[in-house]
Amino acid sequence: MHEFDLIRQIDSFAADHDDVKVGIGDDAAVTSSNAYKDMISCVDTICEGIHFKRSTLHLSDIGYKALAVNLSDIAAMGGTPRYYLVSLGIPAEWDQEEILEIYRGMNDLAKRYGVILIGGDTVSAQNGLMISVTVLGEIETNRSLLRNSARVGDIVFASGTLGASRGGLDLLLSQGLTAHRTEEEKALVIVHQRPDPQVTLGELLKESGFRIALNDISDGLSSEIWELAEASNVCICLEEEKIPISADAIKLFGKQSAYEYALNGGEDFQLVGTVAKTHWPTIQSTAKEKGIRLSAIGSVEHEGDSQVFMQKNGERTRIKRTGYRHG
Amino acid sequence: MHEFDLIRQIDSFAADHDDVKVGIGDDAAVTSSNAYKDMISCVDTICEGIHFKRSTLHLSDIGYKALAVNLSDIAAMGGTPRYYLVSLGIPAEWDQEEILEIYRGMNDLAKRYGVILIGGDTVSAQNGLMISVTVLGEIETNRSLLRNSARVGDIVFASGTLGASRGGLDLLLSQGLTAHRTEEEKALVIVHQRPDPQVTLGELLKESGFRIALNDISDGLSSEIWELAEASNVCICLEEEKIPISADAIKLFGKQSAYEYALNGGEDFQLVGTVAKTHWPTIQSTAKEKGIRLSAIGSVEHEGDSQVFMQKNGERTRIKRTGYRHG
Repeated sequence: MHEFDLIRQIDSFAADHDDVKVGIGDDAAVTSSNAYKDMISCVDTICEGIHFKRSTLHLSDIGYKALAVNLSDIAAMGGTPRYYLVSLGIPAEWDQEEILEIYRGMNDLAKRYGVILIGGDTVSAQNGLMISVTVLGEIETNRSLLRNSARVGDIVFASGTLGASRGGLDLLLSQGLTAHRTEEEKALVIVHQRPDPQVTLGELLKESGFRIALNDISDGLSSEIWELAEASNVCICLEEEKIPISADAIKLFGKQSAYEYALNGGEDFQLVGTVAKTHWPTIQSTAKEKGIRLSAIGSVEHEGDSQVFMQKNGERTRIKRTGYRHG
Repeated sequence: MHEFDLIRQIDSFAADHDDVKVGIGDDAAVTSSNAYKDMISCVDTICEGIHFKRSTLHLSDIGYKALAVNLSDIAAMGGTPRYYLVSLGIPAEWDQEEILEIYRGMNDLAKRYGVILIGGDTVSAQNGLMISVTVLGEIETNRSLLRNSARVGDIVFASGTLGASRGGLDLLLSQGLTAHRTEEEKALVIVHQRPDPQVTLGELLKESGFRIALNDISDGLSSEIWELAEASNVCICLEEEKIPISADAIKLFGKQSAYEYALNGGEDFQLVGTVAKTHWPTIQSTAKEKGIRLSAIGSVEHEGDSQVFMQKNGERTRIKRTGYRHG
């Protein structure tokens, strides 16, 4: 199935309406709420056996992660998450305590950002656990940070470090859920099990008032950069040495694997974006004041041709478009 | 699993907040949007093999119904549905055309009420189709029609006729999806496959400005009346002869089965509510002007003891609480 074609066709059912500012295709939808605020909404579903295994995540981690995925989508618009609704499909043999464990995990994360549970639906599913979470957020009118705002001359930046989540998954798969782990191993595992959606950074970038294109890194850096390049119809060149790769991942898996994980591993839930060169020092230092690391990793080179290149020692290679797009 | 206990425990994660006017427990959540409007949101999930079979519904009907369930929840609050988001879990072997059929069915209903698709997520599911739909609606501030507003002396009313959906399901199960059918049989089948959520009636009841308790009939009349009685802490007595049973269901299945279907069959997606006796003639005639049938089916008798009775020929029997509660 070609998800991009599918989204395009589904999008034909999404009627034009003045109140819909961003429909299907960006991280989340933006609709008019009132003169001061827009509403941001998104939904994401994770299924056992496809998106997660119970051998690598505790029940509470599964809940945590299902909410994190959506908070990350709100963060990628610069929005503030406010409410969430949950739909759980659970195997018939589950007991109440197991369901509550999932909600506890969601609550751990929700509390941190003041996001409130307002609706829940629990149904039996034939096979395997399925969690669908809808998050509703808000943002000042017409201030959402979209993927299509990248312009020639912009700096490309990424937050935090990348590759840890995939490294953590490797450890969980090889060592199991309850193994004794070194500090480095623990650090990677926690990023995989309980990734930190960059809500604070998203709000900070929005508050700057600068033109910023933004996307969250759910499918790996290369896929997300491609989305920015395509949405903005620009060519982007990254510099390999500047990619902020997780030091723990390098230590445990070697530089080449860690680089591979950063580019294609996914689930780091950091943010990647572009901003005018003149505004870059300001946003980098503002983020630093909040303890958030931002790295310049490349630049936007020209318009009219969506491409992504990686440069190393003066040589360029075209990065392949990997992974699926998500609506 | 006792869904009521579970909801109560999950509800403990739903932090108190001034902006949350109705949280988990009614048909939908009501949150403060601005000085004039509240937002109404709800989510419902249906799974193949549990909530529907592909032997009784076309793919487009499944989509239609997944949205209808949610529009009915918004209608039961007196709200106006505005937007919807969809999460589809589909078997890996499905092709794009099958997914689009589901969206087409949703679109058939969405167009009718001007509801706009703003988000979609399609993931692979291990077994069977799963559709989770979130609907966002709006209503004037503090005007939502809740389940807990029934008062002693109120008339209990129901819209349309009941029992048709379950009758239609029986026909589909015995005759198959494509059988040649009589007009009466077709009428029942269409109610099962494409129930009409009572959005217009819900808005009409809200516009009356009267104190009205309201609930939609998703699980059968008896279960929904119980929810009203418990939420309002009142005793309700229905009169068997006044239940508006589908004439087609009576003709095809006999009076006793049709009555059973009306009470416990579910999925009619009509509305049931209570209103002060003095206001009853007004709402009944206002509805009639719009071509909507409202029947007085009983009354609210006393407070402090949630019970539901059925009266026939001067004799009363206590109606059992059947079905699950939905948050």
